[in-house]
Amino acid sequence: MTSIDPSGLASTESEIIERAEYRDAVIDLLAVLAVSEITAFERLAADSVLAPSFADKATMGELATTEFRHFISLRNRLIELGADPEIAMEPFRNTLEEFHAKTKPVDWLEGLMKAYVGDGIALDFYREISSYVDERTRELVVEVCDDLSQSAYIVERIRAGIEQDPKVAGRLALWGRRLVGEALSQAQRVAAERDALSTLIIGGVDRPGADLAEIGRMLARLTDNHSRRMADLGLAA
Amino acid sequence: MTSIDPSGLASTESEIIERAEYRDAVIDLLAVLAVSEITAFERLAADSVLAPSFADKATMGELATTEFRHFISLRNRLIELGADPEIAMEPFRNTLEEFHAKTKPVDWLEGLMKAYVGDGIALDFYREISSYVDERTRELVVEVCDDLSQSAYIVERIRAGIEQDPKVAGRLALWGRRLVGEALSQAQRVAAERDALSTLIIGGVDRPGADLAEIGRMLARLTDNHSRRMADLGLAA
Repeated sequence: MTSIDPSGLASTESEIIERAEYRDAVIDLLAVLAVSEITAFERLAADSVLAPSFADKATMGELATTEFRHFISLRNRLIELGADPEIAMEPFRNTLEEFHAKTKPVDWLEGLMKAYVGDGIALDFYREISSYVDERTRELVVEVCDDLSQSAYIVERIRAGIEQDPKVAGRLALWGRRLVGEALSQAQRVAAERDALSTLIIGGVDRPGADLAEIGRMLARLTDNHSRRMADLGLAA
Repeated sequence: MTSIDPSGLASTESEIIERAEYRDAVIDLLAVLAVSEITAFERLAADSVLAPSFADKATMGELATTEFRHFISLRNRLIELGADPEIAMEPFRNTLEEFHAKTKPVDWLEGLMKAYVGDGIALDFYREISSYVDERTRELVVEVCDDLSQSAYIVERIRAGIEQDPKVAGRLALWGRRLVGEALSQAQRVAAERDALSTLIIGGVDRPGADLAEIGRMLARLTDNHSRRMADLGLAA
């Protein structure tokens, strides 16, 4: 087992517990992100079947293969930290598979929206959490969250789809709300089941975390970004 | 439109027709291969959902992302040859989507078998055709057909699955036969619909192609390779 603390000096028992707790939290964070990336890869590639043109398939494929590369980086970092990637990732598999099972796009526009809006809010959330971890972990999280799905091309394609058939706007606005609702309910499930991960945000025995006001601001930022993304598409959040 | 003939000299009318026919055939070959790769990418990534472990998902992901890279190389070559990739690939979309719709694996072992046996015979077939085209095209085809799915890892995983539950051997042997049957029936459909592509093999007005004996030998090689792959898995072809 590799210690994450670079000092390697343990003096009091509470520091040792604190450090073990912190290590568990970082492993949980990397693992949940890794499972997000591999399931996103599987679903984006599968949704490429819905793409009307081969140019669109190429775009979905670029997104999907990037998610796969991210998965590999995160898995390698878990191994570096001395974690068994299978054991670390397993607790998150059901949650993320359930999210995808409950949000199967019925057509190409819903698939694109899922990449833009669903990945958007998930990645914002992981970035927020990364402010509570060490620099090296944060760098990896930020790199992995620098997502292609937020590209102008995706926005343009969705806007063009709505322009071509304005009736779909209402359905897509609902779809956006459903994506966020499902994402939040899965996030709550993870937080309830994974103590280490929630301790990372709210703080531990000797380590101050975010207070309620800060958590409130974080949720406000997530909601604002989501509304901005919906507005970019010309949709009500 | 870029001419494939490097000499660029056209003397008789039949030579011009012959050259146009040849160009169409090469574009058809690259296009059908590109569509094979992108649909294989979509299905392999989707089948990764069936993988029991994250290590297996990583393997399926490697296979899938390699297929995607091949798709991009082939699409770029179509553009280089002055073809519109959408127009070139469209005629093959239904055929390949139908192949995948008719061969949906019900479990992880069927998914692996499809990658090994299905991709195996398809790639053998493309390699055979490539002996009738110019060197540059042949090199690209051979590169794209140098497939990871033929790796020892896949064979090992399938053999281990059969060892663990010998009952599945009969079902997998049938599955292998179905994969080849569906692949052949789709190949026949393509050959019947795409004159240029079949002319490439059987020859044109002034260009000798394969005679019946050679076509017989080609089919024998395809069947032999398929039987060898099934034997590698410990299954009857």
